[in-house]
Amino acid sequence: MSDTPAYTRNARTTPTRYRERATWEREEIHAILDAAWVCHLGFVADGAPVVLPTIFARVGDRLYVHGSTGSRPMRGASGGQGMPVCVTVTHVDGLVLTKSAFNHSVNFRSVVAHGTAEQVTDPAELAVALDALVDHVVPGRSAGTRRANPKELAKTAVLRLVLDEVSAKTRADGADDDEADLGLPYWAGVVPVAPAYGTPVPHESTTVPLPENLRALTS
Amino acid sequence: MSDTPAYTRNARTTPTRYRERATWEREEIHAILDAAWVCHLGFVADGAPVVLPTIFARVGDRLYVHGSTGSRPMRGASGGQGMPVCVTVTHVDGLVLTKSAFNHSVNFRSVVAHGTAEQVTDPAELAVALDALVDHVVPGRSAGTRRANPKELAKTAVLRLVLDEVSAKTRADGADDDEADLGLPYWAGVVPVAPAYGTPVPHESTTVPLPENLRALTS
Repeated sequence: MSDTPAYTRNARTTPTRYRERATWEREEIHAILDAAWVCHLGFVADGAPVVLPTIFARVGDRLYVHGSTGSRPMRGASGGQGMPVCVTVTHVDGLVLTKSAFNHSVNFRSVVAHGTAEQVTDPAELAVALDALVDHVVPGRSAGTRRANPKELAKTAVLRLVLDEVSAKTRADGADDDEADLGLPYWAGVVPVAPAYGTPVPHESTTVPLPENLRALTS
Repeated sequence: MSDTPAYTRNARTTPTRYRERATWEREEIHAILDAAWVCHLGFVADGAPVVLPTIFARVGDRLYVHGSTGSRPMRGASGGQGMPVCVTVTHVDGLVLTKSAFNHSVNFRSVVAHGTAEQVTDPAELAVALDALVDHVVPGRSAGTRRANPKELAKTAVLRLVLDEVSAKTRADGADDDEADLGLPYWAGVVPVAPAYGTPVPHESTTVPLPENLRALTS
């Protein structure tokens, strides 16, 4: 699918089920990541799993998540040894309704990334990551803001996960009933679903017109 | 907010950040869960976190996830001792753009549930859970399908997580800039986002009109 090498295919990045829906292609994985507003960050705390939604961004093969320096994942990764994480991004694209209850499904695109998250300490990388986090939500947004000052930077922690053990899984198909069920008098098919933007609501302090990047997204 | 008792408030269900955005109210938590198509299921495999998206449903204080009997989480929970999990559901409701990069945020509703998942073995509970999983995607859907037969039931594993250590976190607010930034000539405000249904696409085998429950959702 692409000239760039694919991500690592190993036991951890190979689904046990529906293997034919998996891909390790870099470009496809990047596209799924970039289209999501939040990821789900998994880590282990006191031996138990914790999954928290959080804003993220991708720069090349680096995935950044950010949070307060006092938050649990940031403290977990601040010891210098990094923290084992699993970062998962999911889009639901359609509800797949079949004549049998058993064959119901959803159309989706998901990415699961395993690895060790490390805290970003280099000021130049931190600046790149913070811009990317803002631009991830609205492309070009960071140029239309006051950038973080030193006091704010000191309050922000950013974790880096280098993308390597990563796979995507997708389904984009119709209803798939067993042959024997096709004649049953039930409705089968796909109900597409997708996120939609509403009309932007300016804050009362806003004195400028809606910027072009926001107009492009929401009109 | 309600006459029903709230869920357990302890160290694990109390966010370290923005505690004022947290709630343990049962009805609010149920509403957030019921509005989501998928959850993110976290568990620990070989000491490392794994987060997988999966279909789920809620029946009272029981949350059910299902999968193939051969899938990793199902095998992990099948030993009789259960499996520590974290189940997280997130809705993104708006992009919150501020004049400072630092104060950018998202409006969201999320639920994080901790506990031990156990495999459902009672046939009556399994039948209830399977109907709930189909009805969770489209209310009333299970009545318009062929229910699972014994062969299909044997291939399906369902995990039960009793909701107890559960909290929700929400933000539903405007842009919140620092006083000193309010005069800056940037656009600040909220861009609402919400999932939207597309036009249902019937499978070629479908001979009946679109059922009322699907018409209600998608028109």
